[in-house]
Amino acid sequence: MRILVLGADGYLGWPTALHLSARDHDVVAVDNLVRRRWDRRCGTHSLVPIASMERRVERWSELSGRTMGWQKVDMCDADAVTALVRQTSPDAVVHFAEQRSAPYSMISRAHAVETQVNNVVGTLNLLFALRDHAPACHLVKLGTMGEYGTPNIDIEEGFIDITHNGRTDRLPFPKQPGSMYHLSKVHDSHNIAFTCRIWGLRATDLNQGVVYGANTTETALHRDLATRFDYDGIWGTVLNRFCVQAAIGQPLSVHGKGGQTRGFLDIRDTLACVELACLNPPAAGEFRVFNQFTEQFSILDLAHRVQAARQAHGLDTTVAHLPNPRTELEEHYYNARHQKLVDLGLEPHLLEQTLIDTVITRVERIRSRVRPGLFAPRVDWRAREQAFSEAGHLSAGRSARSLVGRHNGHRQAAARAAAR
Amino acid sequence: MRILVLGADGYLGWPTALHLSARDHDVVAVDNLVRRRWDRRCGTHSLVPIASMERRVERWSELSGRTMGWQKVDMCDADAVTALVRQTSPDAVVHFAEQRSAPYSMISRAHAVETQVNNVVGTLNLLFALRDHAPACHLVKLGTMGEYGTPNIDIEEGFIDITHNGRTDRLPFPKQPGSMYHLSKVHDSHNIAFTCRIWGLRATDLNQGVVYGANTTETALHRDLATRFDYDGIWGTVLNRFCVQAAIGQPLSVHGKGGQTRGFLDIRDTLACVELACLNPPAAGEFRVFNQFTEQFSILDLAHRVQAARQAHGLDTTVAHLPNPRTELEEHYYNARHQKLVDLGLEPHLLEQTLIDTVITRVERIRSRVRPGLFAPRVDWRAREQAFSEAGHLSAGRSARSLVGRHNGHRQAAARAAAR
Repeated sequence: MRILVLGADGYLGWPTALHLSARDHDVVAVDNLVRRRWDRRCGTHSLVPIASMERRVERWSELSGRTMGWQKVDMCDADAVTALVRQTSPDAVVHFAEQRSAPYSMISRAHAVETQVNNVVGTLNLLFALRDHAPACHLVKLGTMGEYGTPNIDIEEGFIDITHNGRTDRLPFPKQPGSMYHLSKVHDSHNIAFTCRIWGLRATDLNQGVVYGANTTETALHRDLATRFDYDGIWGTVLNRFCVQAAIGQPLSVHGKGGQTRGFLDIRDTLACVELACLNPPAAGEFRVFNQFTEQFSILDLAHRVQAARQAHGLDTTVAHLPNPRTELEEHYYNARHQKLVDLGLEPHLLEQTLIDTVITRVERIRSRVRPGLFAPRVDWRAREQAFSEAGHLSAGRSARSLVGRHNGHRQAAARAAAR
Repeated sequence: MRILVLGADGYLGWPTALHLSARDHDVVAVDNLVRRRWDRRCGTHSLVPIASMERRVERWSELSGRTMGWQKVDMCDADAVTALVRQTSPDAVVHFAEQRSAPYSMISRAHAVETQVNNVVGTLNLLFALRDHAPACHLVKLGTMGEYGTPNIDIEEGFIDITHNGRTDRLPFPKQPGSMYHLSKVHDSHNIAFTCRIWGLRATDLNQGVVYGANTTETALHRDLATRFDYDGIWGTVLNRFCVQAAIGQPLSVHGKGGQTRGFLDIRDTLACVELACLNPPAAGEFRVFNQFTEQFSILDLAHRVQAARQAHGLDTTVAHLPNPRTELEEHYYNARHQKLVDLGLEPHLLEQTLIDTVITRVERIRSRVRPGLFAPRVDWRAREQAFSEAGHLSAGRSARSLVGRHNGHRQAAARAAAR
């Protein structure tokens, strides 16, 4: 299949592009490289050093004998997105190309607006380009389990049968997202569902859990093929952060009581799920939702599992509770269905079996690169002034300017933005 | 109460500002006047001539002895919105200030993006300004019954109790909106609910039905106080359009079978509902939803009622079925609850009692201004190329440029946009 991977410079996008290329799909990697700029603006970095996209693609070609396309495109540049889709005529588009940090989206008004406009407009541009130039193409869109929030009933995969006053309908599962970022994904889901219904597009919304892991079969082949690994308070996901904290002898920082339960999955399962979705497209006009995770844990449970895994290798670990910067329930019911990908053949990597090999060991080797100052949550869901922006890492004005550039549909503005 | 009316130059915003001022509230009318620019770009016009905002406010002061504030502000200019809220310290904000036409949002990619960015960013700017400068203020936000779509179960007011696998929760009612415009309102609703939850803001989402009517007590006082009246294929709502078609002897154009059932209300009831919401604010942190309509009819039923009302005065009327430009069910179940505003004291004006007096008579007097070419639907939900844009009334490029200007948070850009 010819597959576009949008957001191919990201933590998951790059390994996905490699995975699909290794399985003989004709892959075009696409990104605007904004994630590297956000690192500079936020004072954050990838624990694992990453090569440039040019070097990555070249190294992959050299090692695998396969050719991967690479195009620098901003999804908010409508003309560029249209040209990309028209020129490549993809069978599937895997769309990771969004601002994906909840804390980033909560820094300020400008960051909330930047996140929602970037994500919603990028996806709208793609939907119109597909309608006009590749109407049979399958859109595989990364959503998040965070779209559902924590309802007091079982979470279904996208839709729920509701019987009410004697009548029944199958309706979209109600959404209660917990950040400006999660809201942007809810907006995307509604927009995509609508275009499937009116234009007959076909799409799979992958409501993904929290991903952990540092390596995949392909990224482990060479240091130039490594993917990024984030552990800071803005970009880091919880399990990766725990492993880094443990590696440098810091306590694992649990926010609040730690009763927050979420779905988790190994990075290798992300790749498998995306390929399973691609290989099994929905019918024209179908908007399909898969809950993409393999196990669910509470945060405190997760901390204890890291502790136990290290203990088995004679490594000590402590746990500390910090005030929770987010507004969320710390004790709640949580039971989310995740059957559809298993039905398609997913064989999960379970946390217990792989935690030490895939994360802790890897992190131990490069722990000298850890900057402990980055662990602390710097964004509070309730606060008007953020410690983050006070630190001068980022000004709202700068963010607003770059937003306008990236939001403009014209090449000229995109070129200006790229030149910054 | 001190009340800001945002979107005060619109069909409903202006009569609302008058109504609240007449009842001794301290009203500040706010608009960016973009609706008049959209008329010029779309080649549309208000059947009823309307005065400038300056003249309206002056005339109202002269006739009523009351002072109404007037400020030209673009909701996408974050600095201006912040200054507005900080300087006025409102008790309530009534927010009509959005692009509100479904066909306009479906003209092209640029129009879809313009609609969603304008509406979502404007509302986000307002929410942050309220958080920072008027956290106790009550946001009265105009939504639409179109957010719900046409589910096969009864529609509740914003929330529904769902029992599933033996557990029960009260969750947001699932949304299935039918255009890029309706989607923008769904996005707003999710964003507002979130900010009530995390920041303790208080908001009422008025999911309004289709409004009809040409006059209110205050707009009828003087021709300078008249509000706009739209009958064209982009901005006109169905009942107003029927009355205009009938007035010039054209058949009432029913799209498709006409089985589409919707909620309707008299323009005077809109004003009463908004004031009832203002006078009865929700608690801090509460996100409340009212379904704001008084009767539900199918489109064909509505056509027959216009026919019957005219018949009673000896006027002949015919009905014609046109191809439906929208993607929507033409025969479906529809039963939407609309009790909460009645519980607060709403006494509805019913269609049968008022149609002739309030609409047909008014339209008859100015029928020489009707441009029959504007009736036809010019935007098809499925088509890539729109008859509309082919007519040269509007270019996507121009639309994209003005979007960037209005979306920029800086005064400078707003000034540039205003100067165009």
